[in-house]
Amino acid sequence: MGGDLAPQAPIAGALLALAELDSRHLIQLVGKSETIERELDLQLAASDTPRDARDRLIIVDAPDVIEMSDRPSAAVRGKPNSSMVVGLKLHAAGDADGFISAGNTGAQMAASVVLLKLHGGLTRPAIATVFPTARAPVVVLDAGANVDCSAVELLQFARLGSVYAEDILQRSNPVIGLLSVGEEPEKGNAAVKEAHKLLQHAGLNFAGNVEGRDILTGGGPNRQVDVFVCDGFVGNVLLKFYESVPEMMFGMMRRTGVTQQLLDQTFKGFDYSDYGGAPLLGVKGVSIISHGSSSPRAIKNAIGVALRAIDTQMVDHIGRRLENCTGSDE
Amino acid sequence: MGGDLAPQAPIAGALLALAELDSRHLIQLVGKSETIERELDLQLAASDTPRDARDRLIIVDAPDVIEMSDRPSAAVRGKPNSSMVVGLKLHAAGDADGFISAGNTGAQMAASVVLLKLHGGLTRPAIATVFPTARAPVVVLDAGANVDCSAVELLQFARLGSVYAEDILQRSNPVIGLLSVGEEPEKGNAAVKEAHKLLQHAGLNFAGNVEGRDILTGGGPNRQVDVFVCDGFVGNVLLKFYESVPEMMFGMMRRTGVTQQLLDQTFKGFDYSDYGGAPLLGVKGVSIISHGSSSPRAIKNAIGVALRAIDTQMVDHIGRRLENCTGSDE
Repeated sequence: MGGDLAPQAPIAGALLALAELDSRHLIQLVGKSETIERELDLQLAASDTPRDARDRLIIVDAPDVIEMSDRPSAAVRGKPNSSMVVGLKLHAAGDADGFISAGNTGAQMAASVVLLKLHGGLTRPAIATVFPTARAPVVVLDAGANVDCSAVELLQFARLGSVYAEDILQRSNPVIGLLSVGEEPEKGNAAVKEAHKLLQHAGLNFAGNVEGRDILTGGGPNRQVDVFVCDGFVGNVLLKFYESVPEMMFGMMRRTGVTQQLLDQTFKGFDYSDYGGAPLLGVKGVSIISHGSSSPRAIKNAIGVALRAIDTQMVDHIGRRLENCTGSDE
Repeated sequence: MGGDLAPQAPIAGALLALAELDSRHLIQLVGKSETIERELDLQLAASDTPRDARDRLIIVDAPDVIEMSDRPSAAVRGKPNSSMVVGLKLHAAGDADGFISAGNTGAQMAASVVLLKLHGGLTRPAIATVFPTARAPVVVLDAGANVDCSAVELLQFARLGSVYAEDILQRSNPVIGLLSVGEEPEKGNAAVKEAHKLLQHAGLNFAGNVEGRDILTGGGPNRQVDVFVCDGFVGNVLLKFYESVPEMMFGMMRRTGVTQQLLDQTFKGFDYSDYGGAPLLGVKGVSIISHGSSSPRAIKNAIGVALRAIDTQMVDHIGRRLENCTGSDE
């Protein structure tokens, strides 16, 4: 029920996903059951979804709705029958393999931490986002879960991002860069300078400090940095800034007569809905955060991200990775 | 002598500027006099500069060179005959009205603070940069002078940026936005949350918190935020990231057959060399920081920024603005 386009977009996204997935996959639609039922009937009548689509959808009633303006922790406590809480409980109980929402991000984080729990040794979860580039996409984290971060938390993000790059982006031995204001180890704010030292002895493929200009270029012609580590304030400002670039560029190009066809061709792969959702890393479960304005295609791709996380056992992988280094970090 | 293209680009930029400026303007070229003399002769022979150009150029010998890799404070102390120190001394003594360099930024900041001094009440200077947008350009500061900032420093940046927007960008009563991770006053890191409170009672045209996506759009269809306030870590990462966007976009567009002519037409005004240089704000003088890789055109435009700062008496304006609110800030 969350997100700006609910329940239309989540339902349409689920139907798109079912059309691509084999028949062993079921999708639970969690929310006000009457509202979902009505919308689903409309969409099934209109679209050319597979014949068995309805049989592979389960509607789970959740009468409460967490609004985008609700305060996260209060909403999670006060609305136990919301789609957010009910859906995450299904996942926590093993009755769902993963959870996806385009609703209130803060509430999803709070509910995920409470219901799925954090891996041992972690203080906060992190949001990993994918930045499209002219080369391969890269991971930037944290993208907003944590605004004031310690050096140890930055190190934790590096570990989480490394597993994400391996499992979701299929990079082997991903290269980690620490986002700073200069390449030299002594450049940066207090937390970054300290994190640089920790990262040198963390057993990761650490490339050292990287700068804002390295994100889109991969860090130079002969280098590909896969994971950019930063605090959630920097990551969030950067993510929202980058998301606003294509619209401005498109507007400018249309004005000088570049055709929509050429634009589409040029910026293939630059649509955020290609990436669909950002996993909340560090919780013992698959909790995918989607944009509030997610299109059906973005929801379908978020389901794809969840499946990849499930198939690669990313959560166990993170658990093992963190276990192996507990103690050495702090 | 500083910068990647010295002394060619600074000399060529000075000649470009002289061709546009009336004859009352003189330019001092500070550096190794023999090297400058030689390069100047070559350029004067080749270019169609005004006949009196040589008469309006004064060569000031400064045999030391501060390298890009030199440590700022050590370089300023250890190389008193560098172009950086000699040039800033000329300005401090009143023998030059402003100073421009494409050399070591840290050394320029350190030497500017030592030789020009900070306005009373300030703890650090700030670098104000201009971000081109599809609408009017906006000011983002600090862009790298200060990595760990207090709330009071963020407030000081707002005051400095406000005067900059008035004097250099000709905005009346500029709108100030505080860069954060959400519009609500309670969103942000500790310094930003505290700065939000201070800014509400600072006598500035404060629009509240703004987000990364608001920089290029001006904050919405009916709003134009002129000045975006952030700490130097965030500003530096963002600036370098934004500087890398056009190259990626151009590369992608060329690949799909967009012509160079159409690119030039579309992105007119998006060339960083249009803005030339970023004034170091807060020092009692005009010290313009140019990119290490500044082209002659960028140098010419940096001279233009210096002239605008001189003509509008920006430094006195900042002094008065800060004087009027000392005490109320802290």
